[in-house]
Amino acid sequence: MRQRNVKNKKEIIENSKYFMSNPIEYKGKWNNVFNNSNPIYVEIGTGKGKFIIENAIKYPNVNFIGIEKFDSIFALALKKIPDNLNNLKMIRLDAININEIFDKEIDKIYLNFSDPWPKARHEKRRLTSPTFLEKYDDIFKNDKIIEMKTDNDELFCYSIKSFNNYGYYIDYLTFDLHKENKLDNIMTEYEEKFTKLNNSIYKISVSKCKK
Amino acid sequence: MRQRNVKNKKEIIENSKYFMSNPIEYKGKWNNVFNNSNPIYVEIGTGKGKFIIENAIKYPNVNFIGIEKFDSIFALALKKIPDNLNNLKMIRLDAININEIFDKEIDKIYLNFSDPWPKARHEKRRLTSPTFLEKYDDIFKNDKIIEMKTDNDELFCYSIKSFNNYGYYIDYLTFDLHKENKLDNIMTEYEEKFTKLNNSIYKISVSKCKK
Repeated sequence: MRQRNVKNKKEIIENSKYFMSNPIEYKGKWNNVFNNSNPIYVEIGTGKGKFIIENAIKYPNVNFIGIEKFDSIFALALKKIPDNLNNLKMIRLDAININEIFDKEIDKIYLNFSDPWPKARHEKRRLTSPTFLEKYDDIFKNDKIIEMKTDNDELFCYSIKSFNNYGYYIDYLTFDLHKENKLDNIMTEYEEKFTKLNNSIYKISVSKCKK
Repeated sequence: MRQRNVKNKKEIIENSKYFMSNPIEYKGKWNNVFNNSNPIYVEIGTGKGKFIIENAIKYPNVNFIGIEKFDSIFALALKKIPDNLNNLKMIRLDAININEIFDKEIDKIYLNFSDPWPKARHEKRRLTSPTFLEKYDDIFKNDKIIEMKTDNDELFCYSIKSFNNYGYYIDYLTFDLHKENKLDNIMTEYEEKFTKLNNSIYKISVSKCKK
């Protein structure tokens, strides 16, 4: 996502009650942070936050964690969160280090409009590369569910192959999400913009448990 | 594929040296028919024959068998075959009966622009449904390679899921075949028509052997 500099971003981040400044200390103990045993869903690359915030509002019995590596966007997301959400935490982190903060406690990962890293030499940086799928193995609790949305052909093709070859089952797959289940879908900022242009949105949902 | 009635189709079919009138008697013995031990590739739904004929010409060390269930189209395909091909045979058959004519002797199956059977109650008729994948299991020799091309979103999505859940590995996947490897690709009649309209062609190649 393109970055715009946000004034006072440091202040915004540090003053937000949703910001977890030292996530490493909660590794393996995130259910304690939320003070319940509800499932934990993580969005990697949470951007301006619309998706994770609306999910947290809609599903109070699920704990949500948004992860974003860029300060400015992270600050924009934090500014947007209403005051009264007990089931949302936000972490500023490069996903490459995700194993430092979670351990066998995550129920679902969302990957929304991730950076496609189109060059072959950058394959490892794609959030659906075997490099990352291995990392996710260690943070998942049971089912290992990943839900991905993108408008990028190449990343989508790559990801389908990567999930398949890593032993994931494809539970859901569409080349035109908005034609299929508009009602249920929570859109990201990027998705909203693209949908207005009539572009198709791809979605895949995979898990490690054969249904 | 839409059917046009072809005059003298019965005559054309019966007079063609490529037509195997009683394929059941060669079950398990197709390498004897070709009089060599070369691999055998089968196209199910061979239509007007362009794909299988051009393959047979281009790859003399592979044996090709085209299967088509509709008389008129089958006759058109037979008319088109040049005289001197020793590595091509044509069978008129509904693929539902494919296990009656092959037994552990096929190396690759081509599915080109197959009927999408869009209604849920017709799922079993799709050539990539578990019903058919089970049948293919018994006709394959070793590697179990299936190559599929289509321009149909729904059929392609369904097929990716079906291959994945049946334990196939995705070796190749593209949403725009003609952007990627034009040179290597042999087009079907239908594909040629669609490509002229600038429509994208999907392709997937799967196998049972992890590479």
